[in-house]
Amino acid sequence: MEFSSKLLERAVNEMSQLPGIGKRTALRLVLHMLRQPKEQTIGLAEALKTMRNDIKFCKSCNNISDVALCEICSNPGRNEAMICVVEDVRDVMAIENTSSYKGLYHVLGGKISPMDGIGPHDLNIESLVNKVKEGKAKELIFALSSTMEGDTTNFYIYKQIQDYDVFTSTIARGISVGDELEYADEITLGRSIVNRIPFESSLKL
Amino acid sequence: MEFSSKLLERAVNEMSQLPGIGKRTALRLVLHMLRQPKEQTIGLAEALKTMRNDIKFCKSCNNISDVALCEICSNPGRNEAMICVVEDVRDVMAIENTSSYKGLYHVLGGKISPMDGIGPHDLNIESLVNKVKEGKAKELIFALSSTMEGDTTNFYIYKQIQDYDVFTSTIARGISVGDELEYADEITLGRSIVNRIPFESSLKL
Ligand SMILES: [Zn+2]
Ligand SMILES: [Zn+2]
Repeated sequence: MEFSSKLLERAVNEMSQLPGIGKRTALRLVLHMLRQPKEQTIGLAEALKTMRNDIKFCKSCNNISDVALCEICSNPGRNEAMICVVEDVRDVMAIENTSSYKGLYHVLGGKISPMDGIGPHDLNIESLVNKVKEGKAKELIFALSSTMEGDTTNFYIYKQIQDYDVFTSTIARGISVGDELEYADEITLGRSIVNRIPFESSLKL
Repeated sequence: MEFSSKLLERAVNEMSQLPGIGKRTALRLVLHMLRQPKEQTIGLAEALKTMRNDIKFCKSCNNISDVALCEICSNPGRNEAMICVVEDVRDVMAIENTSSYKGLYHVLGGKISPMDGIGPHDLNIESLVNKVKEGKAKELIFALSSTMEGDTTNFYIYKQIQDYDVFTSTIARGISVGDELEYADEITLGRSIVNRIPFESSLKL
């Protein structure tokens, strides 16, 4: 692509570094911005910059938060002995949306995936295991997507904590195998949490 | 969508104002940014802000430019009596990429589209008509997409300039080089037969 402007070229190149956005799409988006009022693009730029600079991750559950301890962890009405283990903040949002869960969460920040070079130490696993060792967590609910990587991650965590006094379960497979949590409808997702099964049972399936 | 962070929510809302980017896609993109080094998001934000604040449109052809008169308009090697009329900067880039055109351009900034509330006065038409009236332009090549809106726009401009000493043409429509005839739509195939060219001429291409 030959650009008539360095400013345009730089904006397109930066946009096209986002996943799923090629050069043509980036150019289309940037040209759209030029047709909109200036304030709109400035607003977008400021929102991204402020978010990236100031966003926090909850010191307990690793969920995205504007404060040190997130609203869920600091809510006295939640059952702090029950911890739902999820991949990322989208899963927290999806489960919270069902209003069927009153425990806490633990956001791993991904799944173990040797293919992508993601090992256990790249994820937020150690602090979860510590919650179990310190006796704070009495039940872990594994709610990772049921893919090879999700199963590997569940099993890795399970091996670390199986000798401790903790009950482990996985959400019921009302959700199609291989589907991402965030795309499940609320009722299915809600039921799959209520009907969770012991993790040991899930290994026999 | 219930967000655990106002900063996250604001960033997602701003991103989802871009065309073709829904809330879910915006969230996916924003979470990706949080996993990348901070500098990458700051770089994107700065590029968009600088572009929107500082970008210029060529005072002659309306093409995007970093200077008052764009590189094409200020190039003495180009034929300034020949003007190719296009919708936006992407068309300039596409034609420049062929290296087959040595005239100038005129970027309308859109097409007449009553459905979208875009009339002649929302486009950069008057300055084009003036170039003809002042005798600067001797040939206009209409290179808008051949849709209802494109044809309407061509015809509107043609009516304004038909009494002046200017030759008007439209780019040839036909089967793409390398395409199988059987996959071409009927209108394109029909036009390519009506507008056939002497075989000897085709040998020179
Ligand atoms: Zn938390
Ligand atoms: Zn120009």
